[in-house]
Amino acid sequence: MSNTNPARGMRDFLPADVRRRNYVINIVKEVYERYGFEPLETPAVENIETLMGKYGEEGNQLIFKILKRGEHEKTGVADLALRYDLTVPLARVVAEYKNQLPKFFKRYQIQPVWRADRPARGRFREFYQCDVDSIGSKSMIVEAELCTAVTDVLVELGFDDFTIRLNHRKVLEGILDVAGVPTDKHGEALVALDKLDKIGREGVEKEFVQRNVERDTGNKLLRFFENVIQSQKIDADVTKAVGNVLNTHWGENTEEPIHSEANKIHINRVSSSQRSIALSNKLALSNKLIIDSIKSFINMHGVGTEAIKELETVLELVQGTSASSHIKIDPSLARGLSYYTGAIMEISVPDLAGSLGGGGRYDNLVGMFSGQDVPACGFSLGLERIIVVMTERGMFSDHLIGTNADCMVTIWNEESTADSLTLANELRKSGLRVEVYPETDKLGKQFKYASVKGINYVCILGDEERANNKVALKNMTTGEQETIERSEILAKIRGK
Amino acid sequence: MSNTNPARGMRDFLPADVRRRNYVINIVKEVYERYGFEPLETPAVENIETLMGKYGEEGNQLIFKILKRGEHEKTGVADLALRYDLTVPLARVVAEYKNQLPKFFKRYQIQPVWRADRPARGRFREFYQCDVDSIGSKSMIVEAELCTAVTDVLVELGFDDFTIRLNHRKVLEGILDVAGVPTDKHGEALVALDKLDKIGREGVEKEFVQRNVERDTGNKLLRFFENVIQSQKIDADVTKAVGNVLNTHWGENTEEPIHSEANKIHINRVSSSQRSIALSNKLALSNKLIIDSIKSFINMHGVGTEAIKELETVLELVQGTSASSHIKIDPSLARGLSYYTGAIMEISVPDLAGSLGGGGRYDNLVGMFSGQDVPACGFSLGLERIIVVMTERGMFSDHLIGTNADCMVTIWNEESTADSLTLANELRKSGLRVEVYPETDKLGKQFKYASVKGINYVCILGDEERANNKVALKNMTTGEQETIERSEILAKIRGK
Repeated sequence: MSNTNPARGMRDFLPADVRRRNYVINIVKEVYERYGFEPLETPAVENIETLMGKYGEEGNQLIFKILKRGEHEKTGVADLALRYDLTVPLARVVAEYKNQLPKFFKRYQIQPVWRADRPARGRFREFYQCDVDSIGSKSMIVEAELCTAVTDVLVELGFDDFTIRLNHRKVLEGILDVAGVPTDKHGEALVALDKLDKIGREGVEKEFVQRNVERDTGNKLLRFFENVIQSQKIDADVTKAVGNVLNTHWGENTEEPIHSEANKIHINRVSSSQRSIALSNKLALSNKLIIDSIKSFINMHGVGTEAIKELETVLELVQGTSASSHIKIDPSLARGLSYYTGAIMEISVPDLAGSLGGGGRYDNLVGMFSGQDVPACGFSLGLERIIVVMTERGMFSDHLIGTNADCMVTIWNEESTADSLTLANELRKSGLRVEVYPETDKLGKQFKYASVKGINYVCILGDEERANNKVALKNMTTGEQETIERSEILAKIRGK
Repeated sequence: MSNTNPARGMRDFLPADVRRRNYVINIVKEVYERYGFEPLETPAVENIETLMGKYGEEGNQLIFKILKRGEHEKTGVADLALRYDLTVPLARVVAEYKNQLPKFFKRYQIQPVWRADRPARGRFREFYQCDVDSIGSKSMIVEAELCTAVTDVLVELGFDDFTIRLNHRKVLEGILDVAGVPTDKHGEALVALDKLDKIGREGVEKEFVQRNVERDTGNKLLRFFENVIQSQKIDADVTKAVGNVLNTHWGENTEEPIHSEANKIHINRVSSSQRSIALSNKLALSNKLIIDSIKSFINMHGVGTEAIKELETVLELVQGTSASSHIKIDPSLARGLSYYTGAIMEISVPDLAGSLGGGGRYDNLVGMFSGQDVPACGFSLGLERIIVVMTERGMFSDHLIGTNADCMVTIWNEESTADSLTLANELRKSGLRVEVYPETDKLGKQFKYASVKGINYVCILGDEERANNKVALKNMTTGEQETIERSEILAKIRGK
């Protein structure tokens, strides 16, 4: 007997898991196709040089490396590695096939990636990314379309309470410049600020001292970001209040509308679209306020001002789309990856600590392969996290993910077996999913198997039925059994 | 600039490739679901012990091995490996989850596997297997259902000239025993006999000498297998003749029916189903003849006689199904893998040297993991080979695999951009696949882009159109352009 576990941090997906995953993947594909994105697939294995140095020092450590083969195996040298994300392979593909690809290459890619992270709840060593990227244009139309596409994916999956946080690397640059952080300290200052929510003002002040950020500079930054976080909290309360009010009037018609302390909102008996308009007006207002506060902070900083204009353009472009009730400008969003150069996005839902996905513009990554910069912007959704939230919220149903066979053909005896197989194949040709019980067990045992597997109908081809060219159809839920023509089975099972 | 090739023996799949692959995969899934098989997925990476020793000495060499991580990296030791096939992971899964799985576990699995083979035409280091297996029953119903399911897959893909060669490990055992090959030499004798087609009688005789197979024994075997091969060749000619005759009368109504030297067949103006009946009658006859010749060769050999009975049962069970015109008993079929214990199958088409897929019964493999034998039988289709043949035969069409967006929305100027995005999203909601040109280029340039991408309709939202709440729709094939209501676009594009 040997160890039969999957490798550490990896998972086997039994049928119900696969169906859930495919349900989500199919919606992602369908929406991206609707936007004109095309599918791409790259190998799981890349030359090791393709990956090393693209994800920072920590990334290098987490890459799974593959030993050379044959006589070179004993050297212990690795020449290949497992895909670590879908963005670097895309950049390689764009550089390699530039003459075959359209001027604007819009692709989606849904494949696993591997990271030798310490496994934890919700963190695996093999997981799927659902990426969507637009290559070849610097226009903000790209950002707007990506945000709308991602919104459509989440809405079709059944989410309505997600936020697409939107920021810009150069807005951050402006804020840090104006506060007086030297360019080479930008990264350090951001790492410290990123913890504000967790370790509080005093914690960040200590980090600033350790990272040699000047006291005066640090205070300016802290004041600005504390305000941002404070206004976000108020926003969240308001949004929740709007949601509660509307939910109250959607569901049972109970009590009074809830009055938020932060903002008094009275909306009665509103529809889902009214709700979305209400949220989108509220968002537009709070986005305007936050943009004003960034503008007043960074004053006339050139690069920063340009970047704010880009964010305003994105907001304007999505106005007539579903994304308008989900995008929220958030100057505290930083995103870890170093290759971003412009807009950055991250999707959050209230009941998940991490994000459902994120992305941004990376105009220089392709150039690392081709020597020639190509503008690019994309979004990556985490399949596992989406599934975790959907499962916890009960957003999957058998109805959605599909179940077992529509019916099972039993085996009466050896003599009738070929006929049972013929019947099964007739039914399959008519579009039913049909299982055949594989042995000549007692009927009771065969029925029990169908029950356990949740198969609702069972066909019996006994001697009498065969003699009259009929079939007995048993409904496993009601226990009813009737003898009918073979040609009537489909209609019976489909409920006429 | 760096190397932008995929790793050796691996491939990038650009959109048209992915669509072709998905088209095939979707049909495979659909058919297997119709038979009540359920989807399973296992990790790409397995613990190295799970794989080592399961595929023979050569297999061990071809397994991609993954270095330990972190401080252990420099030891050069591998603790993980890439999946080499889908059967061993299935056996591991069956052992691991035996209490959660149904008594008869019918699963399909379509995932890539990796082998460090020397790359060659049609041989890759990353390739997809489409496996279907039934676990838990020794009944021949399993073999019959598998052959029928695989037949349905190939027929739905558009194949009509494939053969499922069927043999039995214990038939081979009987033949070798009777000829006088000692049990421990069975493998050696089979390796030599397997080359009969390529190196001829004299070549095999030499091999027998090298492998210490006695002259008399060798002669017996050669006589039997030469007869088999001879009768297969005649069969192939006849089949081709039947095919030609029928094709003649399907296509243009030319000449006389072709008269085969091997067998005079006169069939006029037959339908596809008549053709299949003709082939299936012919197959039944030749299967009967070949089974008789095996019976007379192995005489009363116990195990062998049992095995022949099993093959006869399979033939009987598929009689009323589409598989009956494709299964051909072939005692010369051996199959490389050592884990097979009963029936073995392989699918061939005339224009491919290798096979499209194969499989068999392996009743002992699960026991290697769980210590308890569980009967199992399965089939594996090679996605790449199916695609190679389908491509060479021109079996893919744009119509089948899907193409680009249904229409493209152009950008008139910056002012109208948000409105263009709104229009695009209205159209997407109505079910169209819509691309938005991402920049405010000259219209001619935007039209050209749509042409190059094969997008048939282009929407223009000029100043006048927007003022009247209309849109100009241009048909890129005819050049026609008309101004219509936004709400009419769907009907126009769908051709009413």
